[in-house]
Amino acid sequence: MPPSSNFFSIIAGVGAGTGQSVALKFAQAYPVVLLARNPANYEPTIKAIASSGGHAIGISTDVSDPSSIAHAFEQIKKEHGHKRLAAAIYNVGGKFVRKPFLEMSLEEYEAGYEANGKGFYLFAQKALPLLLDSVADSPHPPSLIVTGATASLRGGAQSASFASGKFALRATTQSLAREFGPKGVHVAHAIIDGVIDIPKTKEWEVNGGVEDGKIKPEAIADAYWYLHTQHRSNFTQELDIRPYVEKF
Amino acid sequence: MPPSSNFFSIIAGVGAGTGQSVALKFAQAYPVVLLARNPANYEPTIKAIASSGGHAIGISTDVSDPSSIAHAFEQIKKEHGHKRLAAAIYNVGGKFVRKPFLEMSLEEYEAGYEANGKGFYLFAQKALPLLLDSVADSPHPPSLIVTGATASLRGGAQSASFASGKFALRATTQSLAREFGPKGVHVAHAIIDGVIDIPKTKEWEVNGGVEDGKIKPEAIADAYWYLHTQHRSNFTQELDIRPYVEKF
Amino acid sequence: MPPSSNFFSIIAGVGAGTGQSVALKFAQAYPVVLLARNPANYEPTIKAIASSGGHAIGISTDVSDPSSIAHAFEQIKKEHGHKRLAAAIYNVGGKFVRKPFLEMSLEEYEAGYEANGKGFYLFAQKALPLLLDSVADSPHPPSLIVTGATASLRGGAQSASFASGKFALRATTQSLAREFGPKGVHVAHAIIDGVIDIPKTKEWEVNGGVEDGKIKPEAIADAYWYLHTQHRSNFTQELDIRPYVEKF
Amino acid sequence: MPPSSNFFSIIAGVGAGTGQSVALKFAQAYPVVLLARNPANYEPTIKAIASSGGHAIGISTDVSDPSSIAHAFEQIKKEHGHKRLAAAIYNVGGKFVRKPFLEMSLEEYEAGYEANGKGFYLFAQKALPLLLDSVADSPHPPSLIVTGATASLRGGAQSASFASGKFALRATTQSLAREFGPKGVHVAHAIIDGVIDIPKTKEWEVNGGVEDGKIKPEAIADAYWYLHTQHRSNFTQELDIRPYVEKF
Repeated sequence: MPPSSNFFSIIAGVGAGTGQSVALKFAQAYPVVLLARNPANYEPTIKAIASSGGHAIGISTDVSDPSSIAHAFEQIKKEHGHKRLAAAIYNVGGKFVRKPFLEMSLEEYEAGYEANGKGFYLFAQKALPLLLDSVADSPHPPSLIVTGATASLRGGAQSASFASGKFALRATTQSLAREFGPKGVHVAHAIIDGVIDIPKTKEWEVNGGVEDGKIKPEAIADAYWYLHTQHRSNFTQELDIRPYVEKF
Repeated sequence: MPPSSNFFSIIAGVGAGTGQSVALKFAQAYPVVLLARNPANYEPTIKAIASSGGHAIGISTDVSDPSSIAHAFEQIKKEHGHKRLAAAIYNVGGKFVRKPFLEMSLEEYEAGYEANGKGFYLFAQKALPLLLDSVADSPHPPSLIVTGATASLRGGAQSASFASGKFALRATTQSLAREFGPKGVHVAHAIIDGVIDIPKTKEWEVNGGVEDGKIKPEAIADAYWYLHTQHRSNFTQELDIRPYVEKF
Repeated sequence: MPPSSNFFSIIAGVGAGTGQSVALKFAQAYPVVLLARNPANYEPTIKAIASSGGHAIGISTDVSDPSSIAHAFEQIKKEHGHKRLAAAIYNVGGKFVRKPFLEMSLEEYEAGYEANGKGFYLFAQKALPLLLDSVADSPHPPSLIVTGATASLRGGAQSASFASGKFALRATTQSLAREFGPKGVHVAHAIIDGVIDIPKTKEWEVNGGVEDGKIKPEAIADAYWYLHTQHRSNFTQELDIRPYVEKF
Repeated sequence: MPPSSNFFSIIAGVGAGTGQSVALKFAQAYPVVLLARNPANYEPTIKAIASSGGHAIGISTDVSDPSSIAHAFEQIKKEHGHKRLAAAIYNVGGKFVRKPFLEMSLEEYEAGYEANGKGFYLFAQKALPLLLDSVADSPHPPSLIVTGATASLRGGAQSASFASGKFALRATTQSLAREFGPKGVHVAHAIIDGVIDIPKTKEWEVNGGVEDGKIKPEAIADAYWYLHTQHRSNFTQELDIRPYVEKF
């Protein structure tokens, strides 16, 4: 499907893994806007999309900074103000802090919430009005798709920072699904339960090192695209994703 | 994709709703075998598949009767013994009994388990060896996909029969996912949380009667096809499905 | 508190562990009736209760056999027909079968449900009318307290039999809590997540062999007594119980 | 039991409901320290405790302000430095904001986390070292008991603020239970699912206005005391509490 001229998509949190693959996938249908703090994180993706005939821009954004998010959405309006938003993906992981609770600083504890609570609040505040505007004529129900983790369901020892952030994120997506679903916006939450197969994890010995023991980011992109294209009579609010060999 | 000559699929529990739509979907890729107690339930589906160039047979089967299930799989072996099983769908709802607990007979209470516990055990015992045989060369990871319900997660008042059966079914799929996932078989459980849009429910006033307030069975079929085609690095064990307007 | 002359309690599933401790605890307040298939399982408990000034009888009962349960409640009526039932405890574990699914016979698979689904249905059918009769004047809200397990929440590999039974049991207690709670009967479900410290487990190396690494059955009895004595404005439907060192 | 001279307890979040009742209950065994922002909230409780022969002090504290919490624990050290901490209760609800998401300010959204995430982090950082010091000789396992809500398990429409805070709190208690349980500290989380029967809710028509349709705070205090006195072989990490007539 050639990129639609009337719709676009936004992906917040683009590095070498899930965000990049999701961007490449959605760029087959829509121009994409990529948000990441460090342009080095989205520049390779922009090039890859351009070289395959798609269209992408990047905006350096700190999602947990209100003025940075405001600036990003002003840029988006300038670039795509005449288009409608078909999909917004929130894939901001935040820093994973794992340490004994009594050695964890307030700043470290709050890092989980900064990225997953506050950051998502700020992003959703800007994205939801645009998604609501698309309900009438979007090719698929306009979608807000959010990346969760194992820690969305379980607060492990020494993981209070990440788990409290991911729990808060899950609560917020549930709340938004219940408020905005009936208005036609699809809010979905994916629990990514495993290590993602990216350059950073190449050397990690996971699941005994078996083939496909890490999650292919392209497969996550397929999942998000499937979620985006679900009919509104059939919204999935939550699914889990893990390698076939993952213990759970 | 034309039906593959080397693989086939089985759908247990075929009526006018989910089972039929799933059969039509999977018949685009594989010959299908339809199991239902009453041939009147699968005959229209067989005709519909034949008229669109696919191939289907039906076998009258009582899934909670060991000899009936054994007979069905003997027939399947005769018909498709030279092929491999790509997907097995368990979509047997069973009778939904809703009444005050003290008015519920043992037979009524056990009806939930008969269809969802015992029946699934019998079906999985026969299907899993065939799915294991397909791991090496199936176009997609061989899949055992199971239909759950709202009652898979919540035992409502007066619903002890259905909920105990659906809880037992969910437990069994979790157990099988953990045992057979690492062997390459994808075991997935879909929580269908809403009324399905079929002739029987046409007059039901659901979700205020709004358009798409009931789940389209074709959309469930899309979900099951998506689950079947997931890469083994990215297995979903459970997802929920509900209309955009459903309260949950 | 001396055993009340007007109320009694029933404990189904009495061996050397939880059932015995619960019986000893409740016998401090009420005469108790002990149900177990094998009299050797309840006889030591009857003696222990008698020697501490309480009152207990045992009835050899197969809880998954309707006529055996019917017989037991006829005996109970003869013995305590003039009294009211204050508490009924369902502590029937059933046989724990753990083996590869494809090596598990139908009988083995169904063993989980026999004890935890069918057996509890039969017990609750007889106990609930008696509990309802006690609502008006029982010293504490009449209680139906049920023993669950780790497998009530998670279907582990090779544990389909036990997990399907414990899931079915949990579903049924939820359903009964929602139907009979508003009528004044307290239905509670305890998830016992750990090995119980009984003669049979004496040699088991659990949690590194640390002190108190197994659950003291007396502590479970305290929990059940606490649940029984909760005010009706404050019913707990579910709690978990595990040793301080247990991984979860 | 007369207040122990060697141990004390702390209750954070004391108003006219749960906090007060918990304070009165624990004051029967230990001197108590009450934390609340507004002294008017704890002063009546201090008087009530004094008049029944117990001992209580109050410290005006903003639990989400690091320096205020630090000051409070310095005061506590001056007052009870020679004693050990037996129990710390975190009962800070925070402001319940319920409004459409797009009308919710960042400050309103973050209010849930301020009280339940950040505030609990700060409190637990100070309380846990004291609880660890008590493990060897506390009459009961030193306890950190935390008040959750319906919103700890479900993000309702328009409740993103409260639910994200309560989810974050639950995640943190799970993490602490897994880290500090094996060290002998009991971390428990109570899901209070209903309206509490306090002066503020007197006029609220709840559950049809039936008797005991609101939770008695004294019954919550009994639950917390029961949790505190659990043997370490039998820790409950989570329980729910609701009126017998509550829909759930």
